[in-house]
Amino acid sequence: MSKFKLAMIVALCAAVVVPAFTRTPQAPASSSAASASDPKLPDPKLPDPKLVEDLVYANRILSDQGVVDAFGHVSARDDKDPNRFLLARSVAPALVTKADILEFDRNGEPIDARGRAVYLERFIHAAIYRARPDVKAIVHSHSPAVIPFGVTGTILRPIYHMSAFLGAGAPVFEIRNGAGMTNMMITDNKLGDALAKSLGDGTVVLMRGHGSVAVGDSILQVVHRAIYTEVNARLQAEAARLGPINFLTPEEAAKADAQTDSKASISRPWELWKSRIGKIE
Amino acid sequence: MSKFKLAMIVALCAAVVVPAFTRTPQAPASSSAASASDPKLPDPKLPDPKLVEDLVYANRILSDQGVVDAFGHVSARDDKDPNRFLLARSVAPALVTKADILEFDRNGEPIDARGRAVYLERFIHAAIYRARPDVKAIVHSHSPAVIPFGVTGTILRPIYHMSAFLGAGAPVFEIRNGAGMTNMMITDNKLGDALAKSLGDGTVVLMRGHGSVAVGDSILQVVHRAIYTEVNARLQAEAARLGPINFLTPEEAAKADAQTDSKASISRPWELWKSRIGKIE
Amino acid sequence: MSKFKLAMIVALCAAVVVPAFTRTPQAPASSSAASASDPKLPDPKLPDPKLVEDLVYANRILSDQGVVDAFGHVSARDDKDPNRFLLARSVAPALVTKADILEFDRNGEPIDARGRAVYLERFIHAAIYRARPDVKAIVHSHSPAVIPFGVTGTILRPIYHMSAFLGAGAPVFEIRNGAGMTNMMITDNKLGDALAKSLGDGTVVLMRGHGSVAVGDSILQVVHRAIYTEVNARLQAEAARLGPINFLTPEEAAKADAQTDSKASISRPWELWKSRIGKIE
Amino acid sequence: MSKFKLAMIVALCAAVVVPAFTRTPQAPASSSAASASDPKLPDPKLPDPKLVEDLVYANRILSDQGVVDAFGHVSARDDKDPNRFLLARSVAPALVTKADILEFDRNGEPIDARGRAVYLERFIHAAIYRARPDVKAIVHSHSPAVIPFGVTGTILRPIYHMSAFLGAGAPVFEIRNGAGMTNMMITDNKLGDALAKSLGDGTVVLMRGHGSVAVGDSILQVVHRAIYTEVNARLQAEAARLGPINFLTPEEAAKADAQTDSKASISRPWELWKSRIGKIE
Repeated sequence: MSKFKLAMIVALCAAVVVPAFTRTPQAPASSSAASASDPKLPDPKLPDPKLVEDLVYANRILSDQGVVDAFGHVSARDDKDPNRFLLARSVAPALVTKADILEFDRNGEPIDARGRAVYLERFIHAAIYRARPDVKAIVHSHSPAVIPFGVTGTILRPIYHMSAFLGAGAPVFEIRNGAGMTNMMITDNKLGDALAKSLGDGTVVLMRGHGSVAVGDSILQVVHRAIYTEVNARLQAEAARLGPINFLTPEEAAKADAQTDSKASISRPWELWKSRIGKIE
Repeated sequence: MSKFKLAMIVALCAAVVVPAFTRTPQAPASSSAASASDPKLPDPKLPDPKLVEDLVYANRILSDQGVVDAFGHVSARDDKDPNRFLLARSVAPALVTKADILEFDRNGEPIDARGRAVYLERFIHAAIYRARPDVKAIVHSHSPAVIPFGVTGTILRPIYHMSAFLGAGAPVFEIRNGAGMTNMMITDNKLGDALAKSLGDGTVVLMRGHGSVAVGDSILQVVHRAIYTEVNARLQAEAARLGPINFLTPEEAAKADAQTDSKASISRPWELWKSRIGKIE
Repeated sequence: MSKFKLAMIVALCAAVVVPAFTRTPQAPASSSAASASDPKLPDPKLPDPKLVEDLVYANRILSDQGVVDAFGHVSARDDKDPNRFLLARSVAPALVTKADILEFDRNGEPIDARGRAVYLERFIHAAIYRARPDVKAIVHSHSPAVIPFGVTGTILRPIYHMSAFLGAGAPVFEIRNGAGMTNMMITDNKLGDALAKSLGDGTVVLMRGHGSVAVGDSILQVVHRAIYTEVNARLQAEAARLGPINFLTPEEAAKADAQTDSKASISRPWELWKSRIGKIE
Repeated sequence: MSKFKLAMIVALCAAVVVPAFTRTPQAPASSSAASASDPKLPDPKLPDPKLVEDLVYANRILSDQGVVDAFGHVSARDDKDPNRFLLARSVAPALVTKADILEFDRNGEPIDARGRAVYLERFIHAAIYRARPDVKAIVHSHSPAVIPFGVTGTILRPIYHMSAFLGAGAPVFEIRNGAGMTNMMITDNKLGDALAKSLGDGTVVLMRGHGSVAVGDSILQVVHRAIYTEVNARLQAEAARLGPINFLTPEEAAKADAQTDSKASISRPWELWKSRIGKIE
């Protein structure tokens, strides 16, 4: 077969594959080649490449499912060093690629930012990883249906089994208590610690006039919780207009949570959500 | 024409056809070849291949129309053996292919699971097929607009002719009655029987803090009912905010149902919904 | 250039063009070739081909904009014979092609159905064309945001200039008055006449427990009115929850209508809506 | 390589690239070649080509994000001549191309309309550019969630940090004050001046029974504000149904605004929104 014929077939394969990628927002061409050829990659202290891949999917999925817009972020504790965590550089979650994932220390400072801007609110992640050794992944978002619950007296509670992880209801962090009039953001470790204290040993904490945070023991679990927190908020707001709501009791919530928030149960939606994203870089 | 030229034309045809498939979530490559070459396929006792195909479409349509997310399932009674029913293995409905359809006995146990995980709540289907010989297909979902009606005192009633099958209003199944504090799920035949009893001779039953079930005399009818139950819930919730609702009377509902829920009427949306899915595997 | 090379270029053009069509639901292959070669086409008494094309676009646009689902229909008065009107065979509007357009007489009977099923409620169109010589096009739909206004006492009124054609508010047709308990549908000319009487000299009439009808002096105008009736209903329902609404006064509505419902004004959205549909068959 | 082979490769590249464009509404083929070869382009008095490009993106983004439908417009002050501004000819924002951008004088008259129709309400822009030298870009829209706030007594106020630019709440322009019963539109400079007076030194002004206007010191900022004004309206309406809202205090709003409405912060969503549009003509 001639070189020309081979080149034609390669071009045709590209013609078949490329349109599939156009469904999702186009990520900027990133220096993934650089990281792929990084001589440090086989280093046993580097985080599992699967963890990095799942973190990129988590970013894209949270955007596709409407939990984050251009703002919000998701992190994962480093599986090799529990004092470190992985988080993207400052970029919209829908555009995150593997090359955008940076490593941060326990105080929220980047190990090596490679000249890139980092999220102003990385202290949300640092503070919770310090306070909660059981937490392996964190989502911070301005998840739209959740915002109204943070600014009114209405408690976000589990309306059905899928959001049983909300248990007896999500606490609300009021930044005015302790910090007074601020720009509403978690821009240092002191504010991060205060937020972590509001979260306590819970799964989700709302932030008045800002957004919310979900935590989990894996990327899959925290993505699951962030998405169903948003769904629960939407359903609870609708139900509240029809009349008083018969929520899951704490006992029902505990029993349902053991089933619906289990590793077995959360892999089903994860596969569906991933299938909507397609291949990642 | 040379082999190369032929290969080129085949590749070009692929380039034309493949992008069309990228609209729907990508189903995992499944062992459809295995089932196609299954020597038992011409067995007269096997279910009609058209029934299996319609069941796959039902899965995809219910996902595309927002009735199911990664959870929820649709089944059909085996047309060759009324003591058996067809249901997918444990997978998100949007990803179901023909090779995922398994057969279950009247107690909800798989005839041959081929090593695959099955839905925890298959007893919903088993119990209703046992109790209702007229039922040929069943949808269980967490259809979002319906959830609020299950947890408040508001009865879901027909707001217009398209949902006339709701008749005098849908009953609500309260799992606490009889079973006390549970994980909210129908995980055995006893709970399934209790749910079937709440359904009675109706078309739709709501499940408090969980979801709902629709039944029909065909896959087309049950898909139609599941979708218009969701639409009715959305419209009724909106109308309730404007003022007291003038619902269809039971007599109007019965007359309208004879027209709108008929085989002639439900084939029109079915063709539209199928056209949005495209070809299935 | 060899035959092979020519064939390749043709195939490549197809590869470029076909994916664009996959955005809209796939219309079934229709016998458009038959109508294209129809020897009667140059007949001066046949309706303007542009009218037929616009009617097909109207069907697709109303579906794309969420005014119709698998049900609902749009018609146009024949520009060559005012006693006839054009309406698709019984099919979902999103799937309508030129070959699906049939002609009906003033009593709603098809001139030549060519063996195809026709809409049960074609009498809506027939009756209004008889009663209103000024009306050249009609939309009947179950437009979702409008349904709640038909079943509650709340009058649909113009909340902003874009829906100024609603004037002092849309009347509601109550089929119970005169016809008692029915299947809610307009299945004969008597019911059609009663509906036309409720419409009076207005632009839109709501049908309790069923849907609504919009009329216009052109296909573009009626599509515009049907879409902005739905938008107005959505906005009015939202506003009603915030507090008492300051509607356009009848005088403001009349003045705004002269501008926003004019031929100059309605061509801008029509071009946008058409661009979303692409080519039609 | 033969001419045929070269032509094939060019055709294949087209096959790869073209489907990506089909995601957005198809813009009509425009005379962009004409403007590209315009001999006046290097003229130092002509506006920065980057400004024109950003203005086209602003049109497409506002449509993609649901702030404008076929109506609404966005303008930018000419960077070379502060007495002029750039605005598209009368066309739906989703279809705007570079060739559609025209220049207007301080009274809202086109410098050279090149025979094209212009927006009836261009006086909104002219009047505000006259009154507010700090304003470099303006969006006028019928942004749907904002309409209800314009027709009820409810003040649009910042529910979270992302809409902190709303400060102490957006004023409402009542056209009846001063102009009496009108067609609701800003069709001359006198009405434009009255609207600019209502805006005062604010960022957003609502127009009763019509829409709203947002202003900014750049195209990026005004697009950001127009989008988050719509988001805030949606969230505030939802929250109002749950109970009394704890808004950002004016002090919190001022501090949050310094962060979230800054150039650094608004470039992140801009890149995301642009990535959804793809290449423009």
